[in-house]
Amino acid sequence: MTDDTVADLDAVARELDRAHVFHSWSAQSQASPLVIASGRGCRVWDHAGREYLDFSSQLVNVNIGHQHPAVVSAIREQAELLTTVAPATVNLARGEAAERIVARAPEGFRRVFFTNGGADANENAIRMARLHTGRDKILSTYRSYHGNTGAAIVSTGDWRRVPNEFARGHVHFFGPYLYRSEFWATTPEQEAERALHHLRRVIEAEGPTSIAAVLLETVPGTAGILVPPPGYLAGVRELCDRHGILLILDEVMAGFGRTGRWFAFDGYDVRPDLITFAKGVNSGYVPVGGVIIDEPIAQTFDDRVFPGGLTYSGHPLAMASIVAALDAMESEGIVDNARAIGETEIGPALADLADRHAVIGEVRGEGVFWAVELVADRETREPLPAAAVGRIKAALVERGLLPFVQDNRIHVVPPCVVTAEEVAEAMAIYDEVLSTALEGES
Amino acid sequence: MTDDTVADLDAVARELDRAHVFHSWSAQSQASPLVIASGRGCRVWDHAGREYLDFSSQLVNVNIGHQHPAVVSAIREQAELLTTVAPATVNLARGEAAERIVARAPEGFRRVFFTNGGADANENAIRMARLHTGRDKILSTYRSYHGNTGAAIVSTGDWRRVPNEFARGHVHFFGPYLYRSEFWATTPEQEAERALHHLRRVIEAEGPTSIAAVLLETVPGTAGILVPPPGYLAGVRELCDRHGILLILDEVMAGFGRTGRWFAFDGYDVRPDLITFAKGVNSGYVPVGGVIIDEPIAQTFDDRVFPGGLTYSGHPLAMASIVAALDAMESEGIVDNARAIGETEIGPALADLADRHAVIGEVRGEGVFWAVELVADRETREPLPAAAVGRIKAALVERGLLPFVQDNRIHVVPPCVVTAEEVAEAMAIYDEVLSTALEGES
Repeated sequence: MTDDTVADLDAVARELDRAHVFHSWSAQSQASPLVIASGRGCRVWDHAGREYLDFSSQLVNVNIGHQHPAVVSAIREQAELLTTVAPATVNLARGEAAERIVARAPEGFRRVFFTNGGADANENAIRMARLHTGRDKILSTYRSYHGNTGAAIVSTGDWRRVPNEFARGHVHFFGPYLYRSEFWATTPEQEAERALHHLRRVIEAEGPTSIAAVLLETVPGTAGILVPPPGYLAGVRELCDRHGILLILDEVMAGFGRTGRWFAFDGYDVRPDLITFAKGVNSGYVPVGGVIIDEPIAQTFDDRVFPGGLTYSGHPLAMASIVAALDAMESEGIVDNARAIGETEIGPALADLADRHAVIGEVRGEGVFWAVELVADRETREPLPAAAVGRIKAALVERGLLPFVQDNRIHVVPPCVVTAEEVAEAMAIYDEVLSTALEGES
Repeated sequence: MTDDTVADLDAVARELDRAHVFHSWSAQSQASPLVIASGRGCRVWDHAGREYLDFSSQLVNVNIGHQHPAVVSAIREQAELLTTVAPATVNLARGEAAERIVARAPEGFRRVFFTNGGADANENAIRMARLHTGRDKILSTYRSYHGNTGAAIVSTGDWRRVPNEFARGHVHFFGPYLYRSEFWATTPEQEAERALHHLRRVIEAEGPTSIAAVLLETVPGTAGILVPPPGYLAGVRELCDRHGILLILDEVMAGFGRTGRWFAFDGYDVRPDLITFAKGVNSGYVPVGGVIIDEPIAQTFDDRVFPGGLTYSGHPLAMASIVAALDAMESEGIVDNARAIGETEIGPALADLADRHAVIGEVRGEGVFWAVELVADRETREPLPAAAVGRIKAALVERGLLPFVQDNRIHVVPPCVVTAEEVAEAMAIYDEVLSTALEGES
């Protein structure tokens, strides 16, 4: 193709999009002009060859990077063999995927229920918890996102829940977030202790025997990459145990390498009863999610029908992509890379950035999972206004960096395969934009 | 591979499945022994080469048949280019898929919201209806299945709803089903008229201004392939119009060729406001579903944020598979084949079967979408007991036919590409099994 025809493809893509595609979480008149046609590793391109450094991992899902050749090959091979099969039958790729997933879970987790994504993973974990305990209520935090379907969106704590509150049995509480503490705490220890006190009081006031499960993102992601303070998750586990409440850890965004560990909870003294996943398990190359089930809960359904299911549960293409992705992440040390690059490159570089830009109120994170809080005032911690955040986002894209921007924060969330050179390149762009995009602001 | 190693693969697949895979809608100790490793057209095979004639289309989704080469190629090519991309960006395959879908919808439908499957398609259609009308209630029939997630499963009328009733705002009513009429009707005209009277009374008693939408499978599928009597759907539309209620038609199972038409509603004098789809749109080769949105509803969200979304909305692999599947269905006349084979082969053959087996109470359907009601007694229409149905199912599988069996019914639902020869082969198996499997029954 000539340069003219490829540039035309971008225009055609934009035109078709505007005419026929209804977009998630947006007013439709503000459609995105950003075309993405291809990718590799940490980079994506439009049809005309304009390049972007992807520090969003799209929606924090491309953990293995774009177009990993082994995963692409596995999808192509499975496509040639068998694309789809009913969930009630037996398929080898499905068993192999499940085997690899439970191999990374704590001992005793032996079975996986596959779904199409993170939302229906949480739906089914909630269903299992309710049926196993015979109780109704699900507790989750206000600063959380658990997906878009019926129960998942009402478990969600953020603004996206509010127009969607059509499911009953959901109660919300405040989790730890020292930088904007709900508990007047000033140290991580105090924040953990007081957040646990608050949760204990909510459990008592709701009635412990009415509560089926506490559902938590191990590290709340879209809510701000809120790394839990020491002792918090262990304390939640203890509260749950005291009252026969199950603990569901949502590892949809935090799991499969994002934190520099296979599961985010591997870094804490906590064992969940149910683990939900999606995104990183196959980097979203094929839509998939699921629930990893501890044996006591799985056994509840040995002789009793589990009243949940879906046509594409354990879809062969998705299964083949999981097998290839997890094998490649293992053999290529991709999770180790995420941990190391967080420690030696991203963490220090962001600390340096914070030293030089007063607009940065706090930097926090680990692995390839970092948040940069932008504030109007470091003393009051008042969030930077949306218009200024919007200018920063536009300037980053203009300079060829795909950012993940949420509220007043930049989330620095590149693929787990990111190199030191790519981190340096991104940091130079963040640095320049933070220096120039706010010129003229008070 | 030698015959020994391939036979071993079936055993390995079974073992991994039993150890690690948690299955939909079942007690886990009754795992399926049926391994499916590959397929082509209307046939599938295990690793040892044992062949099955697929008259289930898996879960009534493989409309284009197994492993259609054009769709497989499209998936392989898109996998090579770009597997995944965030929904907020623009992607050419997504625009092309949406364009092809709206081209088959009634005039005025211009936009598509893509989901991961049929359940979240219904979730989002319900969300749109509620926000567009400012009303809460969703009416749907007892004999229905709309999916597994929060609102979808509570819209569902059948037994699968009962352990999952955690969403509010759902009301159920009875739809037309002359063979087991809820309205003491004896003719199709009477059934339609009385079913409409019943719906009108439910609407009046619930309060018309509290109702956002009526959600109906155009032809209820899993509930029994309940072809609506003449006038019913037009009457529902009229009731909706009278009260400002939206009509959502669920075409997840009935759509994209199953009835011998692109949409099942093309055969009726009815125009929905929202159309949900999944399955047949790409035969489930990649998980996908969606909502086709009439312009007045789409425009509600032009300047107002639509509070719904998902990471894999408009997933490139799924989009490429839709483009290829719809193009192949068009150019190869696959929808026409479904219509013709229903009229000239399946319909007459099932009528003949019913003539010769007293266990068949009724046969109904069109295209490649047929139900055979098995009864203990033709007079009382008492359903054949589950144990006898189970023996029939096992005997069909034993003879190399994959059946779709639901309650006391065999659904005859092969791919739309099925040939006259394959129909004859299947009919011979049904015939033999109905003659022998019930020997010794009273």
